[in-house]
Amino acid sequence: MEMTINSDQSAAAADGGRVVYTAAVVGGSGYTGALLAELLLKHPSLRLSLVASDGSAGTPVAQALPRVRTSLDFCAVTDVSGVDAAFLCLPERAAAPVARRLLDEGAAVVDLSPDFRLGLADYREWYGEHPYPDMLPGVYGLPELFRDQIRGSRLVANPGCYPTAALLGLAPLASLGLTDVIVDAKSGVSGAGKKASERTHFCTVDSDLIAYAVTGHRHYPEIAGGLARLIAAEGGASVATNGTAMAGTNSSGPSVSFTPHLVPLQRGITETIYVRAEKLPDQRFLRGLYEDRYADERFVDICDEPPHLRDVAGTNSCRIFPMVDRRAGRIVVFSAIDNLMKGASGQAIQNMNLMLGLVEEEGLS
Amino acid sequence: MEMTINSDQSAAAADGGRVVYTAAVVGGSGYTGALLAELLLKHPSLRLSLVASDGSAGTPVAQALPRVRTSLDFCAVTDVSGVDAAFLCLPERAAAPVARRLLDEGAAVVDLSPDFRLGLADYREWYGEHPYPDMLPGVYGLPELFRDQIRGSRLVANPGCYPTAALLGLAPLASLGLTDVIVDAKSGVSGAGKKASERTHFCTVDSDLIAYAVTGHRHYPEIAGGLARLIAAEGGASVATNGTAMAGTNSSGPSVSFTPHLVPLQRGITETIYVRAEKLPDQRFLRGLYEDRYADERFVDICDEPPHLRDVAGTNSCRIFPMVDRRAGRIVVFSAIDNLMKGASGQAIQNMNLMLGLVEEEGLS
Amino acid sequence: MEMTINSDQSAAAADGGRVVYTAAVVGGSGYTGALLAELLLKHPSLRLSLVASDGSAGTPVAQALPRVRTSLDFCAVTDVSGVDAAFLCLPERAAAPVARRLLDEGAAVVDLSPDFRLGLADYREWYGEHPYPDMLPGVYGLPELFRDQIRGSRLVANPGCYPTAALLGLAPLASLGLTDVIVDAKSGVSGAGKKASERTHFCTVDSDLIAYAVTGHRHYPEIAGGLARLIAAEGGASVATNGTAMAGTNSSGPSVSFTPHLVPLQRGITETIYVRAEKLPDQRFLRGLYEDRYADERFVDICDEPPHLRDVAGTNSCRIFPMVDRRAGRIVVFSAIDNLMKGASGQAIQNMNLMLGLVEEEGLS
Amino acid sequence: MEMTINSDQSAAAADGGRVVYTAAVVGGSGYTGALLAELLLKHPSLRLSLVASDGSAGTPVAQALPRVRTSLDFCAVTDVSGVDAAFLCLPERAAAPVARRLLDEGAAVVDLSPDFRLGLADYREWYGEHPYPDMLPGVYGLPELFRDQIRGSRLVANPGCYPTAALLGLAPLASLGLTDVIVDAKSGVSGAGKKASERTHFCTVDSDLIAYAVTGHRHYPEIAGGLARLIAAEGGASVATNGTAMAGTNSSGPSVSFTPHLVPLQRGITETIYVRAEKLPDQRFLRGLYEDRYADERFVDICDEPPHLRDVAGTNSCRIFPMVDRRAGRIVVFSAIDNLMKGASGQAIQNMNLMLGLVEEEGLS
Repeated sequence: MEMTINSDQSAAAADGGRVVYTAAVVGGSGYTGALLAELLLKHPSLRLSLVASDGSAGTPVAQALPRVRTSLDFCAVTDVSGVDAAFLCLPERAAAPVARRLLDEGAAVVDLSPDFRLGLADYREWYGEHPYPDMLPGVYGLPELFRDQIRGSRLVANPGCYPTAALLGLAPLASLGLTDVIVDAKSGVSGAGKKASERTHFCTVDSDLIAYAVTGHRHYPEIAGGLARLIAAEGGASVATNGTAMAGTNSSGPSVSFTPHLVPLQRGITETIYVRAEKLPDQRFLRGLYEDRYADERFVDICDEPPHLRDVAGTNSCRIFPMVDRRAGRIVVFSAIDNLMKGASGQAIQNMNLMLGLVEEEGLS
Repeated sequence: MEMTINSDQSAAAADGGRVVYTAAVVGGSGYTGALLAELLLKHPSLRLSLVASDGSAGTPVAQALPRVRTSLDFCAVTDVSGVDAAFLCLPERAAAPVARRLLDEGAAVVDLSPDFRLGLADYREWYGEHPYPDMLPGVYGLPELFRDQIRGSRLVANPGCYPTAALLGLAPLASLGLTDVIVDAKSGVSGAGKKASERTHFCTVDSDLIAYAVTGHRHYPEIAGGLARLIAAEGGASVATNGTAMAGTNSSGPSVSFTPHLVPLQRGITETIYVRAEKLPDQRFLRGLYEDRYADERFVDICDEPPHLRDVAGTNSCRIFPMVDRRAGRIVVFSAIDNLMKGASGQAIQNMNLMLGLVEEEGLS
Repeated sequence: MEMTINSDQSAAAADGGRVVYTAAVVGGSGYTGALLAELLLKHPSLRLSLVASDGSAGTPVAQALPRVRTSLDFCAVTDVSGVDAAFLCLPERAAAPVARRLLDEGAAVVDLSPDFRLGLADYREWYGEHPYPDMLPGVYGLPELFRDQIRGSRLVANPGCYPTAALLGLAPLASLGLTDVIVDAKSGVSGAGKKASERTHFCTVDSDLIAYAVTGHRHYPEIAGGLARLIAAEGGASVATNGTAMAGTNSSGPSVSFTPHLVPLQRGITETIYVRAEKLPDQRFLRGLYEDRYADERFVDICDEPPHLRDVAGTNSCRIFPMVDRRAGRIVVFSAIDNLMKGASGQAIQNMNLMLGLVEEEGLS
Repeated sequence: MEMTINSDQSAAAADGGRVVYTAAVVGGSGYTGALLAELLLKHPSLRLSLVASDGSAGTPVAQALPRVRTSLDFCAVTDVSGVDAAFLCLPERAAAPVARRLLDEGAAVVDLSPDFRLGLADYREWYGEHPYPDMLPGVYGLPELFRDQIRGSRLVANPGCYPTAALLGLAPLASLGLTDVIVDAKSGVSGAGKKASERTHFCTVDSDLIAYAVTGHRHYPEIAGGLARLIAAEGGASVATNGTAMAGTNSSGPSVSFTPHLVPLQRGITETIYVRAEKLPDQRFLRGLYEDRYADERFVDICDEPPHLRDVAGTNSCRIFPMVDRRAGRIVVFSAIDNLMKGASGQAIQNMNLMLGLVEEEGLS
């Protein structure tokens, strides 16, 4: 039945009895696009068939991306057509029209931009007008939390890197009556993108460490809204029934602070999350919440101590250590991911696997 | 008149009309001792006359520490005697007896170990029995907060690196009725000391980032107790009248959490401090608190954005950016120092300058 | 027919029609052993069945090596027995007796120590007496250069990391009448091993760069001797007929200098090799030599510019750029590998695949 | 008599009996300009009076360069006038006209661009036409080698970073009949300048290492020509009598290769220099050559082992270790500098001190 997707265009072909879907990476010159292309080359059920980059159209992909051993040339974004699966690595507001067009063509689309992550009000506040307001909010592609919605979708909004680590770290606490949440996040430089700037110059970053976007990072509404949704799903707070993301300052949810920091390393995000709840659990109960919630999850590991970035580097895993800080009467959660894998390209593959009815882990082990 | 210190031993000599004091670095083979020796070589009023290191006694200092251009050999710790000024860079419990002996000899002593930083109860809880319990708590050597006590002292406890950044960041808020304080600290690797271990191996640290000592770092009582003292000085809470440091869990003070992280860089500490107070000030008022408090301070800069580590590297300055987070109803303070300078050796020089009646900035510009 | 190896012990089992051999990593606590264990977990025809480490015997492998997702405990080295394939990651002189014992048991052995890499005279000069002098020199496990000998062997000496990059870079030139060779090598810190020392401390390595072992690194005889062998194979110089490695100062071969440098990164070696030959080729001819020599090699890439370490990181490839420096009348060759993969563990797998008659690339793509 | 320089403009003022010269940094927004400004603030005899940067004219210097604590605003390059001393940190071909103008005004000029470093033929080959061909070659500002010429000059060409380390490392060998020289250089990223590009992006540089500009770096003629001049001064080869720099391929001099590498650190250059001479000295004689040559030099240290970058970081020193490689019949010289200090801004101060008759070390200790 997976064949209903673009099957009449014969794009999904039988390969020794296995169904193989054609896949396009749209916006392939940045870090996430390059990594997606690399992952797709090893994916047993997805075949990299197009890599679009307007700036590089006509030149060999392997020349710009030596780790992507393909004979494909970059094509223009407008030339992407006829694929079963599309991954959009485009800037905000540029992604939505491409998503709309490819959906109409019958493709399954995972959008790595923020264009479908938020509710309309939040989108307007943080990004401006949306070309297709009635498409908001999209299905939020955090499989461990919203797997059922993802399975049935043709368009999934791949979460931001910071919200992925934060929401996986917070979800098991949603029923505890949270009153205050602080996400202190530390990210490697690839999170700032491939664009050269003074900010990403080696001599700026090396031996330095800064907090940035402290008056309001665009991942804030994604974290605060996602958390509100998780709490609402537990019946703990009234939220809009359509699952629209909500700002964290609404009366019913916890107050939320989010502070990102830039650290001198390439890949990875560690978040230290400080939580106050109406009732403080003990360590055993707390740990049980996490182990139960993620018992069947292949990509979430509950640890015995704060996770190392090195243990998630290059993997699609999120490693979490939840801890009761008795002295301060608080829960502290440590959550770590590879921002390019679980925080972007790996999770995009995971979402597409679900959307196409493939094994969720395919191409990610 | 400075000559009252050891003057009859003629150690403080006139150098072209300028009084010059002899100084010893005791425990000179680690990072802080090496940096102190380097700083003393450039100090116009202190002359490096002894560098003690039991493990290296008899060998040239300049061989082990190429940046310390001196012809001195290391001596044994027991051979340190007859100096006007002594800086102790020894482990906990090893420092106290040496301090006692040198004090009895008439030297002015800055102790960089934790031996005189805490009150007796805290010391017992975090370090064990103290050889001279009646000497606790010592004078806490944070000049910007306790200058008057330092000026009159012969023994000063040089603060820990994390507490220095935290207490300078928190002091201006002491009158606001603080209820909750979280110090999320990020430190370079020199803070872990020079001892080789798997933890400090390049391949362990590079590209990694971890939280550590999350169930209780020894700097916790110094931060919580120091904060309680600052609040008490504002009349905001009842504390022991002798200024003993207090744990943060006492009923009258705010709850305090402290989480240190290790980041892949050599020098520097950045702390992001989340504060709840009984009343939330506005940004203008908040900034005024800091500018007023530190108006005359040469080594504290109030910034317009979160400070860069690079701007404090190699300096004795603390750079602070205080911010109201209206969304969450919270104050967030960013505080950055060079852990080896303001967090250790530089501050030790600053303290000694005060103790000897020298210009506070001497040797530190 | 592969089943002749230990098959009567039933260790090599049929797995869905595919023959699977049991494999042991002996000395599993260092970088190369850990990586070998990780690689073996993904190898379709080798099954990780034992990981030996005397210091960790009885403790879970996955606890010490979180990336090695196995339920095995470490065993003692003396308990390694009954496996089809053994990889020895032991210090010099400790490896040889273990190799001898496992060979007698019928195992195929790849030894990553230097114990079988050199001829007897060189071994004595650089390491001391050898317990089994008549076993020297062993088969030198550089598949691209000595594939035929490896195929028929039960014991293969896995080359050192520096010699691997050097000899692959030099082999195509062996017929040109080389007179002078300089190997200027730059290595990441993992090459110095996992042992904590001042030399590998983050604060020693970060922001620093040094040349080391400049009066004689133990990889020198491996490079000089290997080169002499390659030249002899071309008929260009008389060497001992048994293929014993030879020092580079023999009258007939080129003079050889080797200078290793330590650079602040984790993995990878780049070598810039300066070569004088009796006759200077032009660029087209030079390039042809390399393309012809490595035309069928899966793990050697000839590049159009000096290779990036990042393009070999995590791979078993050697990337080479040969260039004629007309101005100086010299050939310059740039050769880059991942020291832990092609320079150690990856190449060990490649050798074992050849020894067991498996597809050479298995488990390495 | 120093007062002859612009003295009638009263720019050089008496400051408590000490003559103080006004100084301008022209092109102050890059690394070398910023460091020059910082150094000038601490210089007892030079007063930073102008910082020019066309892109930033009118904005506060301290805002762009927080370490430069001055109240000056950037001015335009054309507004620089009336100073005693000018440091030009401008691109090639932009510097020469400004130098010409300021010389005519009576200023002493140190030019950090390549505009006056080469002879005319080399300049044409590597940079193109020169606006003032008769001004070539300028006085080459390597004080340890050309101090006398610098002392009497009003215009000095500050050497490139790579040539500084190379020529200081090679000069003591000039009389040995050099036949072959290879300079294998490793540089930190600040050498690539402050301009943001993919090449200087943190994620490009970190964990990577490359050779670059291997077919011809612009510092090649400076090294080869400088070496030829040093040899000529020893009477060892015939060179143009006017001291014009010469290409290294001339019949009489040694062949010279130069290969720069980019390594993941901020500051510093290490060069490993391989030298063949007509006669190979022994180690004692070799060392004597260096000790004699640099006996009185404050900024050159002869070491007992290859120098660490960390020991030159932030200093104006060059550390050199010369070694005989008996095995290969070669001399190997290790030379290390801080590329921004001795390789640029520090050496520029040193040159200006000489030009103005100040103590050579002033402002550099």
